[in-house]
Amino acid sequence: MSEFEALVKSRRSAMKFIPNVEIGEHELNEMFSLTKFAPSAFNLQHAHYVVARDPDLKRKLYEAADKQYKVLTSSAVILVLGNAKAYRDVGPINEGLLNLGVMSKQEYDTTVESVLAFYQERGGAFQREEAVRSASLSAMLFMLIAKDKGWDTCPMIGFDPDAVGKLLNVPEEYVPAMMIAIGKEDAANQRPRGYRKPVGEFVSYEGFR
Amino acid sequence: MSEFEALVKSRRSAMKFIPNVEIGEHELNEMFSLTKFAPSAFNLQHAHYVVARDPDLKRKLYEAADKQYKVLTSSAVILVLGNAKAYRDVGPINEGLLNLGVMSKQEYDTTVESVLAFYQERGGAFQREEAVRSASLSAMLFMLIAKDKGWDTCPMIGFDPDAVGKLLNVPEEYVPAMMIAIGKEDAANQRPRGYRKPVGEFVSYEGFR
Repeated sequence: MSEFEALVKSRRSAMKFIPNVEIGEHELNEMFSLTKFAPSAFNLQHAHYVVARDPDLKRKLYEAADKQYKVLTSSAVILVLGNAKAYRDVGPINEGLLNLGVMSKQEYDTTVESVLAFYQERGGAFQREEAVRSASLSAMLFMLIAKDKGWDTCPMIGFDPDAVGKLLNVPEEYVPAMMIAIGKEDAANQRPRGYRKPVGEFVSYEGFR
Repeated sequence: MSEFEALVKSRRSAMKFIPNVEIGEHELNEMFSLTKFAPSAFNLQHAHYVVARDPDLKRKLYEAADKQYKVLTSSAVILVLGNAKAYRDVGPINEGLLNLGVMSKQEYDTTVESVLAFYQERGGAFQREEAVRSASLSAMLFMLIAKDKGWDTCPMIGFDPDAVGKLLNVPEEYVPAMMIAIGKEDAANQRPRGYRKPVGEFVSYEGFR
């Protein structure tokens, strides 16, 4: 079993955290500086993270998240957002490659034009879906990175997105993809891992079966 | 640098594949048997993968995917789907824990009832978004697993979802989240990795900034 395989198998959604464990901004930023290597369509990097560690703020998020106890005992609650309008940044994102001479001016112009057209043609629902997709790819990477550094996480969708958005001053174009509670798991009374379907039930070849 | 950190940094979206490299079903299934440890809301395991290796089928997928050359030279093209109606499986998914006695009959009934209500109350758009979210979490894990086993991948959204759905007989309730081309990268003339934003631009503390 590779080290990575062991990591994948050891990551489980934490159901209970040990209370009063602090997580430092420096340590979180180290995780995020690796999370940025997640892929995103056209390298638009739609994902944005808002970290809440303040006890008062966490208490309010707990109220907005169906009073899930793990929000209170986590070391931090992180709202993972996707920017539905990230395609508007296609110019600035590619300026570096243009300035390095890796991309010609003509290629740069074509890229900017085609990416803008790609998202505008597909419209608002697609842009929103894309925000969720990109944020989710990033979030999975973040949770593995956290585990590799000794932290446990739990992704959550049971919250009121409008209430949470207001609490954290989230602009309208940023779509809440999920919340992640992070901390040190209290593994006492831990349940067996949830049932997983066998490969044959979620993989098919040459067509859906 | 941990082994995992090196893996994260070595994974890049492959732009060009070495043609005529075969990938075996056994090897793919090994990857999928690890991919199943991805998290999903209520453990509903929304993700479903359809693998296309047949050259004729790949040629048709290439036509439906903006004629992106990497579809033709990849060893396989994989459509990643999310089941928007996965919540209907909440009963069968939890039967194992019930039968093991880990979950009481009362807890089982409450779980089934509350998960059904959770998705029904939120409606179709949420169910679709959830399918994309869950499939994307799974897809990120799959791409890292592939890299760990020596394969390169490229996630793709530039395709006609209806045309691809028809080609692969995808039922209506399964939402195409992305395609993944997999193969051995032809790294000749590889570009520098795309620019990544510094942490301060995509992470903020105690509120959006």
